[in-house]
Amino acid sequence: MHWTAQHKHSPQPMEPRDPQWQEKVRGSFARQKVMTLIGAELVDVRPGRCEIHLPFRADLTQQNEYFHAGIVATVVVSAGGYAGFSLMPAGSDVLTVEYKLNLLAPGEGERLIAIGEVVKSGRNLVITRGEVYTVKNGRSIHCATMQQTLMTMHGKPQVQEHKS
Amino acid sequence: MHWTAQHKHSPQPMEPRDPQWQEKVRGSFARQKVMTLIGAELVDVRPGRCEIHLPFRADLTQQNEYFHAGIVATVVVSAGGYAGFSLMPAGSDVLTVEYKLNLLAPGEGERLIAIGEVVKSGRNLVITRGEVYTVKNGRSIHCATMQQTLMTMHGKPQVQEHKS
Amino acid sequence: MHWTAQHKHSPQPMEPRDPQWQEKVRGSFARQKVMTLIGAELVDVRPGRCEIHLPFRADLTQQNEYFHAGIVATVVVSAGGYAGFSLMPAGSDVLTVEYKLNLLAPGEGERLIAIGEVVKSGRNLVITRGEVYTVKNGRSIHCATMQQTLMTMHGKPQVQEHKS
Amino acid sequence: MHWTAQHKHSPQPMEPRDPQWQEKVRGSFARQKVMTLIGAELVDVRPGRCEIHLPFRADLTQQNEYFHAGIVATVVVSAGGYAGFSLMPAGSDVLTVEYKLNLLAPGEGERLIAIGEVVKSGRNLVITRGEVYTVKNGRSIHCATMQQTLMTMHGKPQVQEHKS
Repeated sequence: MHWTAQHKHSPQPMEPRDPQWQEKVRGSFARQKVMTLIGAELVDVRPGRCEIHLPFRADLTQQNEYFHAGIVATVVVSAGGYAGFSLMPAGSDVLTVEYKLNLLAPGEGERLIAIGEVVKSGRNLVITRGEVYTVKNGRSIHCATMQQTLMTMHGKPQVQEHKS
Repeated sequence: MHWTAQHKHSPQPMEPRDPQWQEKVRGSFARQKVMTLIGAELVDVRPGRCEIHLPFRADLTQQNEYFHAGIVATVVVSAGGYAGFSLMPAGSDVLTVEYKLNLLAPGEGERLIAIGEVVKSGRNLVITRGEVYTVKNGRSIHCATMQQTLMTMHGKPQVQEHKS
Repeated sequence: MHWTAQHKHSPQPMEPRDPQWQEKVRGSFARQKVMTLIGAELVDVRPGRCEIHLPFRADLTQQNEYFHAGIVATVVVSAGGYAGFSLMPAGSDVLTVEYKLNLLAPGEGERLIAIGEVVKSGRNLVITRGEVYTVKNGRSIHCATMQQTLMTMHGKPQVQEHKS
Repeated sequence: MHWTAQHKHSPQPMEPRDPQWQEKVRGSFARQKVMTLIGAELVDVRPGRCEIHLPFRADLTQQNEYFHAGIVATVVVSAGGYAGFSLMPAGSDVLTVEYKLNLLAPGEGERLIAIGEVVKSGRNLVITRGEVYTVKNGRSIHCATMQQTLMTMHGKPQVQEHKS
C-alpha cells in the first residue's frame, strides 16, 4: 500500500447503547437550572451530536456588551457533554474531565449556536469537539472552537426528578 | 554551574504599567453584567493577581445540583483575565485568546473561590493560571485548574461608563 | 430568518498572501533538523493545509514500543504550524503560542500521518486543528487530535540558509 | 467562617501506593528508546514529582536553531507522566489522555529542564502540571508550562525487560 498526499479517513458511525438516549439527554438538560437562568434551548440531539441555542440578553454580557466568554463556554461545554452522554450506556452518568476553548471572534450577535460532536467514543473516555457560531444580521460567524474530554461514570445513573 | 535535582526558579515580580490599574480592573468588572446576573464578587485585585468569589445559588447548577462547569469557567476566566489586565498599559484592552480547564472535583459547596495569577507577561501575550476552590462546611477543596492565553489590544481602551 | 436544527456553516476559502508560500514552507521544513533526526517527510502542502508522514522506527518509541506521545506531538505541531505559515504574508515568521493534544489511540503502527489545517486566519493569530492517524496493516486509525494557536511575527522573516 | 482576600489552600502530601515506585519509574524511563535517541536524563524522581534534563544538540532544533516545540513537549510530557506514575498502585500502567502546552519563551539555551508535578491524584485520573526552563549562560528562563491528564490503567502492569 502506498501512502501519498491528501490522506482521507472514514470515521465510524455513532451507535447509541441506551435505547432511551433521547429522553435521557432531554431530561438531564431540563434539570440543569443554569440553562433556565440564561435562557438556553436544546434545539437538536442525535446520537453523538447536540445543538444548543442561546438568544442574546444584555445580562449575559461582558464589558463590551458581547456574550461573556464564560457563557460561550457554558453552552458549548453542555453541547459537547450531551453529545457524549447520548452514546453512553444506560445506568451511567457523564463527567466533564477537561476542555480547551479557543475564542475566534467576539461573541457579538443576536444568538449563539453551540454544536457538540463526538470524535472518539471509548469505553471510559469520550472525546468531543464543539463549535460556536454567533448569528449577526442573519449571517453566521465562527466564534469559538472547543476540544473536550468526558468520562463515563458506569453504574452511576443520573438522579431523575420524580413527581408525585 | 552544575545542574542537579530539584531545580528552583525565581519568578520576577509583577509591575503594573498603568498607575490606574486598580480602578481600571474594578470599573471593568462592574460593567460585566453577567457578574451581576450570577452574583459574583471581585474580592481582591493586585498586580498580576485577581480573586473572585461566587456564593452558591440553586439557579447556577447542573443536573446534580452542583455549580455548572460553565459557571466555574465564567468566574475563573474572569479572574485570569483581570490578573492579566492589571498589568497591561493604559489605553489597552484585554482579549481572551483561549484557555484550558481541568475539573478536579465536583462544584459542590457554599461558595466558589477563583484565583487568577499571571505566569508570564509579554508585550502582546499574557499567560495566566487559575485555580478554583469550593468551600464546603468551612473546608476548601481544589475544584478546577486553568491555563489561559490573553492578548493585549494596544490602543483600544475599554469603553468607560460616562455618567455626566 | 429562522434558526432550527442542524446549523450549517460555510467556511471561507484560504488565500495565501505570499506568492512564495510553497517554497517558504518547504525551505523552513528542510531547516528543521529534528525532522531529519526522526525521519519525518513533508508529503503535501497547500494553502492552509499541511501533511507530514513519519515511518515507524524503534528508537521513536515509549516503554510499550509505540510511537512516543512527544513524537506524535512533534509531527502534528509542525503540520499545524506549516498550515498556518502557508497563509502568512511575506517577511513574517510563525510562532507556536500553545496547543492542546488529545491522544485517542496508542501510537501503534507502521506510520504516523499528521494533518494540520487552519480553522481561522486572523491578522496576528492563526488557529489550527491537527489530526494524527496511525497506519496499521494498511488500516488507518485516528490516533490524536490537536487544537493550536499560532502568532504571525510581522517583519521577522525566517533566516534563510545562505550557501557561499 | 468569613472568606476574604488572599485565599490560601493547603494541598495534601503525596503518598506513593507502590513501595517499588522508584524502581518502577526508573525502569520505565530506561525502556523509552526515544529518551536515548534525544539524550534525555532522568535527574530526579520523588512521589508526585519528576525532573528530566536535556542537553542541547543541533539535531533537536527547529528552523531558528532553538529546541523544537515537539522536543520540549517530549520531555515535559514524560516528566508529568512519571510524576503521576510514581503515585499509581502496583500492577498498573499510565496512559496520557491529553495535555496542553503554552510556549513562553524560545527554547534557546544549553539545556532544557522539565519538571512534572501531580496536582490531583484520583483513583482513575491524575492531573499534573509541568514547567520547562532553558538554561542560557547559567541563567534559568521559564520556557513552557503544561497541564496534563493521565489515566491509571488498573491491572495492566508495564511489560518488564527480562534478561536471561
